[in-house]
Amino acid sequence: MFDVVAVDMGGTNLRAAYFPTQEPEPAAQRKIPTQAHEGPEAVLQRLVSLIRDVAPAGHTTLRVGVAAPGPLDPRRGMVYGAPNLPGWHAVPLRDRLAEALGCLVYVGNDANLGAIGEWRHGAGRGVENLMYLNIGTGIGAGVIADGRLLLGARGLAAELGHMTVEPEGPVCGCGLRGHLEAVASGPALARQALERVQAGEPSSLANDIRSGKHVGGTDVGVAAQAGDPLALDIVIRAGEAIGRHLASLVHAFNPEVIVLGGGVSTLGSILLDPMERMLKAQLMSPAYIEGLRLVPAALGDDAGLIGAMVLAREM
Amino acid sequence: MFDVVAVDMGGTNLRAAYFPTQEPEPAAQRKIPTQAHEGPEAVLQRLVSLIRDVAPAGHTTLRVGVAAPGPLDPRRGMVYGAPNLPGWHAVPLRDRLAEALGCLVYVGNDANLGAIGEWRHGAGRGVENLMYLNIGTGIGAGVIADGRLLLGARGLAAELGHMTVEPEGPVCGCGLRGHLEAVASGPALARQALERVQAGEPSSLANDIRSGKHVGGTDVGVAAQAGDPLALDIVIRAGEAIGRHLASLVHAFNPEVIVLGGGVSTLGSILLDPMERMLKAQLMSPAYIEGLRLVPAALGDDAGLIGAMVLAREM
Repeated sequence: MFDVVAVDMGGTNLRAAYFPTQEPEPAAQRKIPTQAHEGPEAVLQRLVSLIRDVAPAGHTTLRVGVAAPGPLDPRRGMVYGAPNLPGWHAVPLRDRLAEALGCLVYVGNDANLGAIGEWRHGAGRGVENLMYLNIGTGIGAGVIADGRLLLGARGLAAELGHMTVEPEGPVCGCGLRGHLEAVASGPALARQALERVQAGEPSSLANDIRSGKHVGGTDVGVAAQAGDPLALDIVIRAGEAIGRHLASLVHAFNPEVIVLGGGVSTLGSILLDPMERMLKAQLMSPAYIEGLRLVPAALGDDAGLIGAMVLAREM
Repeated sequence: MFDVVAVDMGGTNLRAAYFPTQEPEPAAQRKIPTQAHEGPEAVLQRLVSLIRDVAPAGHTTLRVGVAAPGPLDPRRGMVYGAPNLPGWHAVPLRDRLAEALGCLVYVGNDANLGAIGEWRHGAGRGVENLMYLNIGTGIGAGVIADGRLLLGARGLAAELGHMTVEPEGPVCGCGLRGHLEAVASGPALARQALERVQAGEPSSLANDIRSGKHVGGTDVGVAAQAGDPLALDIVIRAGEAIGRHLASLVHAFNPEVIVLGGGVSTLGSILLDPMERMLKAQLMSPAYIEGLRLVPAALGDDAGLIGAMVLAREM
């Protein structure tokens, strides 16, 4: 047997946890700032130290699983560079860590591993077909299709947040137009509030926006929950856009379970009700609805970490 | 060993072919009218006679593969009813045929089996990840994901023509709004020509349309190829819509090969050039393009039949 250290590599923090068994209960964990601006070499060194810190002492056999931001090639462990990891252009993350640590290392897309985490230990246990969407600052996703993680030719599949939902819609973080992420992520909600307040619509957010304070997706959500009509309208439209896209995705993947994670998904019924209504209204056969469950993520920020543990343990 | 009869069950014709080996070369084949208006019992009887007709004489072991219109459940061999098969509400096609013929029967969605046909014997040989779209009267599709046919929880996955591409777009044959099928199928091209001529736009199709002649997608294609500006504009827009949707689907499935079949796909460069241009322009990373091939279907109308042969032989 072997011991597993799982790592979640974010733009803000690096997290590592030691899992002594196949249960999702870490025996030790640590979190340190990524300091991504220092570039890949510095981050790689910090990662190696962090993994050594949480790994158990003594001569055990170690395996490491890493959840990293996409796009990346999980079969070769190459990271092609994410917006929040400056300088990571085609970095052989798996091989660099394996060399430094002298052990087997497995790398996966963080949202893909989130899907695995929720599937094996979270809200999607026991099914063969699952879609996982993490709707926050961006929209990451993973698909379990017929009992396996959907990877595609280069391991780049399941980018469900980067599919066009409004051809003439706003520009996405990835530079293309009208993706779900451009319409329904946290920053997309904030951008809509900003534009509509600047166009003269009344809102409880207007003072903060006009005085130049930073207004984020969370602020729009809080205003909507407090009943601000503009914020509420923005959240309802986002819910409808997500629901319509989920219906399309149900036609593509025919899942049993849709797991929703991320900050935007925690806005409650003001988002979930219009989303679920639109999803159901846009399915072309009742056969897609029978047995379909829409559930909140159960593992929160740990989904990717736990998925990385499963990856390292079961590969 | 066993002999295989493959059947393609269409709204207009029933086709059956006897395949003595695993090669896609039938030793015998027949085609008879479906006469779908007579309802499922009459069609089932005709199917049984047709299969007996092409099956080899003597006491061989027979297996039958059937390509049938969706929605259907391939694991249970249930047909839930297609627009061109009136009366087929939850018909246990597999079990009815197996009982009448006394042999093993396998049933699959015709477009899914088209994907298998093209994958194993047509334009998509040798890859692990393939998308197949048949763009004709409707838009059927099938996905080979990581070396297997994508089925989903009830075998209803890969309805790639029934995903929303224009939320405010025209109503689809399935009753929902803005699906790719409502924008880019043959009837969708014809409907656009009709609407725009009736709105006063000049076109070589105007006389036929105004005199009440039937103008179909093929007529629009012929007019576009002859240089009619209205027809050309309609075809170019359809190509762009298909290309944009293909880009979204590439983000979802990351295929190596996209196989395009069906009448609309045979319009040549007037459709394919804008489609390919849009597809490439809408991919968020060059990693999706490397090694991606867009190819015409190689098996034509036989794709489903050959896929049904593969299904029966390899299940």
